[in-house]
Amino acid sequence: MGGEPRLGDVFGSMIRDAYAVQTGIGTRPLAGGRLPRPVTEIIERDDGLINGAPSAHYFAGPEDWEPYDHRAVARVRGATLDVGVGAGRIALFLQERGTPVTGLDTSAGALAVCRRRGVRDLVHATVDAHVADGRRYDTFLLLGNNLGLIEGAERAPAFLAALAAMARPGAQVIAQGTDPYGTRDPVHTGYHERNRRQGRLGGQLRLRLRYRELGTDWFDYLVCSAEELATLVEGTSWRLVDVDDRDAPYYLAFLRLAG
Amino acid sequence: MGGEPRLGDVFGSMIRDAYAVQTGIGTRPLAGGRLPRPVTEIIERDDGLINGAPSAHYFAGPEDWEPYDHRAVARVRGATLDVGVGAGRIALFLQERGTPVTGLDTSAGALAVCRRRGVRDLVHATVDAHVADGRRYDTFLLLGNNLGLIEGAERAPAFLAALAAMARPGAQVIAQGTDPYGTRDPVHTGYHERNRRQGRLGGQLRLRLRYRELGTDWFDYLVCSAEELATLVEGTSWRLVDVDDRDAPYYLAFLRLAG
Repeated sequence: MGGEPRLGDVFGSMIRDAYAVQTGIGTRPLAGGRLPRPVTEIIERDDGLINGAPSAHYFAGPEDWEPYDHRAVARVRGATLDVGVGAGRIALFLQERGTPVTGLDTSAGALAVCRRRGVRDLVHATVDAHVADGRRYDTFLLLGNNLGLIEGAERAPAFLAALAAMARPGAQVIAQGTDPYGTRDPVHTGYHERNRRQGRLGGQLRLRLRYRELGTDWFDYLVCSAEELATLVEGTSWRLVDVDDRDAPYYLAFLRLAG
Repeated sequence: MGGEPRLGDVFGSMIRDAYAVQTGIGTRPLAGGRLPRPVTEIIERDDGLINGAPSAHYFAGPEDWEPYDHRAVARVRGATLDVGVGAGRIALFLQERGTPVTGLDTSAGALAVCRRRGVRDLVHATVDAHVADGRRYDTFLLLGNNLGLIEGAERAPAFLAALAAMARPGAQVIAQGTDPYGTRDPVHTGYHERNRRQGRLGGQLRLRLRYRELGTDWFDYLVCSAEELATLVEGTSWRLVDVDDRDAPYYLAFLRLAG
C-alpha cells in the first residue's frame, strides 16, 4: 500500500539540509512551506523497527563530544584516514591541530558539506576502492559508531584487509563501537536471537536510512561486543591491542598492524 | 525485504515515552541500553516520503505555543470537547482557566498520559462513537492541525454531522489547519497533482504513524486551504463564519451551527 522511497544519497541530503538549518547556507527544508523543519535522521531496521534522532550531533564541536571521542583523537598520530567522515567534525578538529587527515565517504552530499566547512583532503570512495589510489596511512579512524562498517563476519576480513593494504608499518585502527547486549528490551533481544539462529552475529543489524523521499538499499551494520570484535580480528593483519570501555556500553577498540 | 511494523497504539506509545523522557516518570527508551533516546514522531506518506519531528511540542506550555493557539483558546466558551486531546496541553490550560473541557482521543496511551498530567474528563472514542454518550458541547476544538481529522470530501460530512449531533444551540468549531499549496517543492506539488488526478483533494494525505516497532494502518489526513474547507462545509449543519490566517500558511477556521 505504501510507496517505497527513491534510491539516492540519503545521508548526503540529510547532512546538506542539517547544514542549511544550522548555518542558513543553502535551501532549508520547510514545514508548511514556511517554517524550517528540524532535520531528523531516520533509521529503519528490517524487522520493522524505526528510530529517528536529531542530526545536529554530526556538527557538534569538541565541547559537545562524548568523552570517548576526546580519548580517541588523543591517540591519533601520523597520516590519518577518517573513514565515514560525515559532516567532518573529527576531520576539522584534526586538521586544525595539524594532523594530516583525509576524509573518506561514499556520500557525495556529505563530502560537499565537509568541503564547505573547510575540510581540505576528501575522497569519494569505499575503503576498497581507495586502496588503488596508493595513499598510505598511520591511523584509520572509525568514530561515530563506524566500527559498524565492518558489517559482519563475512565482510570484516575484506574490510580489514583493505585498511591493511593502505597501512604504513606500525599503523593503528581506532574504532568506536557499542556493546548491544546490555538491553533487556525484547524488541532487541528477540532480534539478536533471530540473527543468531540465521548464523549472523546478534547485533548484525540489517538497516536502511531514510530521509524525506529518499532511502538507501538495505545494508548490514555491525553492533558487536569487544569480545566478538576480537574474534573477527583473529586471522587478519591486525591485532586487537586495547579496548577502552570506560563509557560502556560504548567502547573504543585499538587495532595494531601485526608484524 | 524489510519487515512491516506491528499494528498498535503508535501515538500513545510515543506520548508515553516522551512523557517519561520529560518527567522521569515511567520507563524511558534507551539508546545502547543506557542513554535516554530523544522521542521522535515519524510520519510516513504513501509515496515513500518520511518525516521525523521532536515530540516535545505535545507538552509545550502556553509560553511555547504558536500565536494562533492563543487566539484559538481566547474564543473558547462553554462546555468544550478537545478532539484529539493528545498529551493534554490545551485541555489542561482550559481546565485551569475554569472552562469545562472533555478530552477525546482514540489513543489509550495518550489518555493515560493526560490522566497522569491531571486532565479530569477524558473519553476514549471516535467522535462518531462519542455521540451515543449523550454529552453536549458549546465548543469543539481541533488544534494541532487536527482539522486534518475530517480526512477528505467523503468523510467530512459524517465527521461534521457527528459534531453537530453533540452540539448545543449556537455551538462553534474552532479548527487549526495549514494551507499546503504555498510550496514549490516538487515532492509536494507532484503529490498534490497525483491526488487531484485520482479525484482526491490535493492535500488529502495518506499517512501512517510509526514509533519503534509499531505502525498504524494507512489513514487519510486532510491538509487543505480555507477555500477547500468552505466547500466541504457547504450543505452541512455548520457555517464557516471566520478564518484567521494571520500566521499563514497556518489558519484558524471558525464554524457556527446553522439555524
